Amino acid sequence: MTFPRLGVIGAGQLARMMAAPATHMGINLRLLAQDSTDSAAQICEHVVGNPNDAQAVLDFARTCDVVTFEHEQVPQSVIKNLEQNGIKVYPRSDSFIYSQNKVEMRKKMDELNLPNPKWQEYSGGDTSIKFPLIAKTITGGYDGRGVFVVKTPEELSSIHKEIGKTLLLEEMLEFDCEIAIMVARSPHGQAATWAATWTIQEDGICTTTVTPVPELTDELSSAAASIALTIAQGISLVGVMAVELFRVGDRLIINELAMRPHNSGHWTIEGSVTSQFEQHIRAVLDLPLGDTALTSPWAVMGNILGGEKTDMYRPYLHLMARTPGLKFHHYRKEVRPGRKIGHVTLLGSDLVELRHEVQHALDYLSGAVDE
Amino acid sequence: MTFPRLGVIGAGQLARMMAAPATHMGINLRLLAQDSTDSAAQICEHVVGNPNDAQAVLDFARTCDVVTFEHEQVPQSVIKNLEQNGIKVYPRSDSFIYSQNKVEMRKKMDELNLPNPKWQEYSGGDTSIKFPLIAKTITGGYDGRGVFVVKTPEELSSIHKEIGKTLLLEEMLEFDCEIAIMVARSPHGQAATWAATWTIQEDGICTTTVTPVPELTDELSSAAASIALTIAQGISLVGVMAVELFRVGDRLIINELAMRPHNSGHWTIEGSVTSQFEQHIRAVLDLPLGDTALTSPWAVMGNILGGEKTDMYRPYLHLMARTPGLKFHHYRKEVRPGRKIGHVTLLGSDLVELRHEVQHALDYLSGAVDE
Repeated sequence: MTFPRLGVIGAGQLARMMAAPATHMGINLRLLAQDSTDSAAQICEHVVGNPNDAQAVLDFARTCDVVTFEHEQVPQSVIKNLEQNGIKVYPRSDSFIYSQNKVEMRKKMDELNLPNPKWQEYSGGDTSIKFPLIAKTITGGYDGRGVFVVKTPEELSSIHKEIGKTLLLEEMLEFDCEIAIMVARSPHGQAATWAATWTIQEDGICTTTVTPVPELTDELSSAAASIALTIAQGISLVGVMAVELFRVGDRLIINELAMRPHNSGHWTIEGSVTSQFEQHIRAVLDLPLGDTALTSPWAVMGNILGGEKTDMYRPYLHLMARTPGLKFHHYRKEVRPGRKIGHVTLLGSDLVELRHEVQHALDYLSGAVDE
Repeated sequence: MTFPRLGVIGAGQLARMMAAPATHMGINLRLLAQDSTDSAAQICEHVVGNPNDAQAVLDFARTCDVVTFEHEQVPQSVIKNLEQNGIKVYPRSDSFIYSQNKVEMRKKMDELNLPNPKWQEYSGGDTSIKFPLIAKTITGGYDGRGVFVVKTPEELSSIHKEIGKTLLLEEMLEFDCEIAIMVARSPHGQAATWAATWTIQEDGICTTTVTPVPELTDELSSAAASIALTIAQGISLVGVMAVELFRVGDRLIINELAMRPHNSGHWTIEGSVTSQFEQHIRAVLDLPLGDTALTSPWAVMGNILGGEKTDMYRPYLHLMARTPGLKFHHYRKEVRPGRKIGHVTLLGSDLVELRHEVQHALDYLSGAVDE
C-alpha cells in the first residue's frame, strides 16, 4: 500500500477545500476540471475535460485509485460507465441518484419511513396538495434554482408548460427554521454525524450557519442524527452527505439531500476536529473516520456573496485587524453579484458577538458598509 | 490591490504546510524548489532553481510580489541582491543574519540585555569557559548537526582542526527542560507570541512537543514572551521566529533562534486559532496578525522519524481507528532512518492520555510496535 491518488470530478470550491486535508494526509489529489481557471484547478494538479463525456471521465479515472465528485451534475450514465469498467467511484451511482433525482429521493425516504412533506409527481391535471405549494424540477436544481412557490393551479400549469417536464410538488411547510446535518459513511459501514447546523436563508440562498442549532432540544438533535444515519445506511452512502431539514415545532421533515461536502458543513474546517473535507477523503478511501466533536461552543459561518466590490484582498486590512480570530476562505472565483465567492468562520462562546462580527465582515466584503 | 503572489525560496515541508493557509486566504504561492520532487513542489506551483544562485533567485523573485524563505541556507549575498534590486523580501538580510550566524546572534542578545549562556569565539588557545562545554560551528548547523559536547582542551583542539574555522563556545548548562516560543512580527511592528512549548529532545532532535509547558510559572511564561518580543523588535523581525530557551531553575537562557516557521510551532496548525504558517504569510504580506489563542487545554505534537517501515499509508488503518482525533501530517519525503518525514498532533484535556496516544502513533509508524 502506498499513498493513493484520489480523483475528483469537478474543480470548484469544494475540490479546492479538499486540497488542504489531502496535502496534510499525504493523499495525491487530481482533478477533472472544466477549465484551468476553475477555483481548485488554480492550486491543484488537474486535467481539463468534460464531466458529461463518459470516455473522458473514464480516461481520467484510470489515472486514479479512487474517484469522487464535488457536484451533482455528473450524469448517472457517466458514473455507471466507471463502475462497469471496474473503477472505484464513490458515492456509487445507486446512492448518488437520490441527490440527483428528487422524486427518487422522496420515494426512498417513504420506504425508509422517514418524515417527508406531502408530495406528488405532477404532469398536469389535479393536485392533492393545497396551494400555495412548492414545485421543483426533479433534476438539476440547486441554490434555489428550479424551486418555485406556486399560489394557484393556473400558475402551476404555466410553470409546468414552461419547464416542459414532470414536476415534483411538495406541501409548503410553515417551518420554524431550517437545519442541516452532515453525515459521513465509509464502504465498511462506519458512519458519523456532526452537530446539526442552523442554516439561515435569504431568497433561497444560505447566508449564515450557526452550529450547534440554538435551543434545539436534545430529542431533536438526536432525531436529526438518527435521520441522517438512517439515510446514510439506507442508501449505502460512501462519502459525506448533507441532510437539509425543516423544523416544524417538535418535528423534523426532510427537505433535500446533497451527497458531497456541502456549504452547511463549511464550519467544520475550523469548528470540528475533523472537517467534512477530510472526512470525505477518509470515507471514499475506506479509511477509519475522524472525530467529529466541536472544537468550540459555537461556530458561525457566513457566505461571502459577490456584491459591488471586486477587490476581495484589500478588505483584509480592516477585517483582520478588527476580528483577529476570523478565518477567511476565498475561492478565487470571479466576483459576480450574488455568487458565493468565499466564506468566513468565527468560533467562540458568545454567540451574539460571533454573529455580529460575521455579519459585519459580510457587509464590509459586499460593500454594504465602509467600516 | 489584488491577491498577491508570495514567493518562497525552498520547497520542503515548511513550504508545504504554508500551502493550506495560502489557499484558504486566496494568496498565490509560488516556490523556488531545488527539485520537482521536493515535499512542497509536489503540491504547489514552483520553478526549479538553485537558492545559492543570486541571478536565479532574482529572476524568481521578480515574478512575485513578496519573497520569503523556509530555510536558513539562503546566502546573505543572495538576499542582499534582492534587496538592492527593490524586491520586498522578509525577513530582511540584517534580521536573518541572527539565525544564520550564531556569534552575531550572541552579540545581539548581549546588546539587548537578554540572557545568554557564557560564550566566546574560539580560534585556538585558552578558553574562559570550563569543560565540559559546547562547541558550535558558527554557521550552517541544524538539528544537532554542527554542535559538539567537548570534554577536554585536547578534544576541542582536535574538533577545531577538523572543522577548520572559528568556533562558538558556550557553557554547558544543567537545564531542567528545553522550551521554545514562537513569535510573529509584521513590517508595521505588530507582534504576537503563542504559548510557550516544551520541546522534548533525544540525541539533539526534537521528538515531541507539549503546549503549554507543563508547570511553567506565570512569571516564566511572561518572561518567555517578553524575551521573544524583545528579540523580534530588536532585530526588526518580519515573519515568524522560534526562540529556543533553556529553563535553568527560575531562569530562562537563550539557546537558538530560527527565523521561519519551526518544528516547535507545528502544534499551532490545529492547536491555535492562527497557525504559524498562516501568521508567517500574514506577517510578510504586512496583513494584521491573527489570534494566537490555544484552541484546547493541551496540544501534543510528535515528529515521525524515518525507521524500518517505508509504507507510511497502511498505518492509517490502525491509527485512525484507534485515535479518531489524531491529526496526520505527511511530508511525502523519502523515508530515511532518523529523517523527519511527518508529524502527528493531538489536542485535548488529559495530557497523560494525549502523550500516550502520540507516543503510540510514533512507535507504530516507526515499526517499534506492531499494534
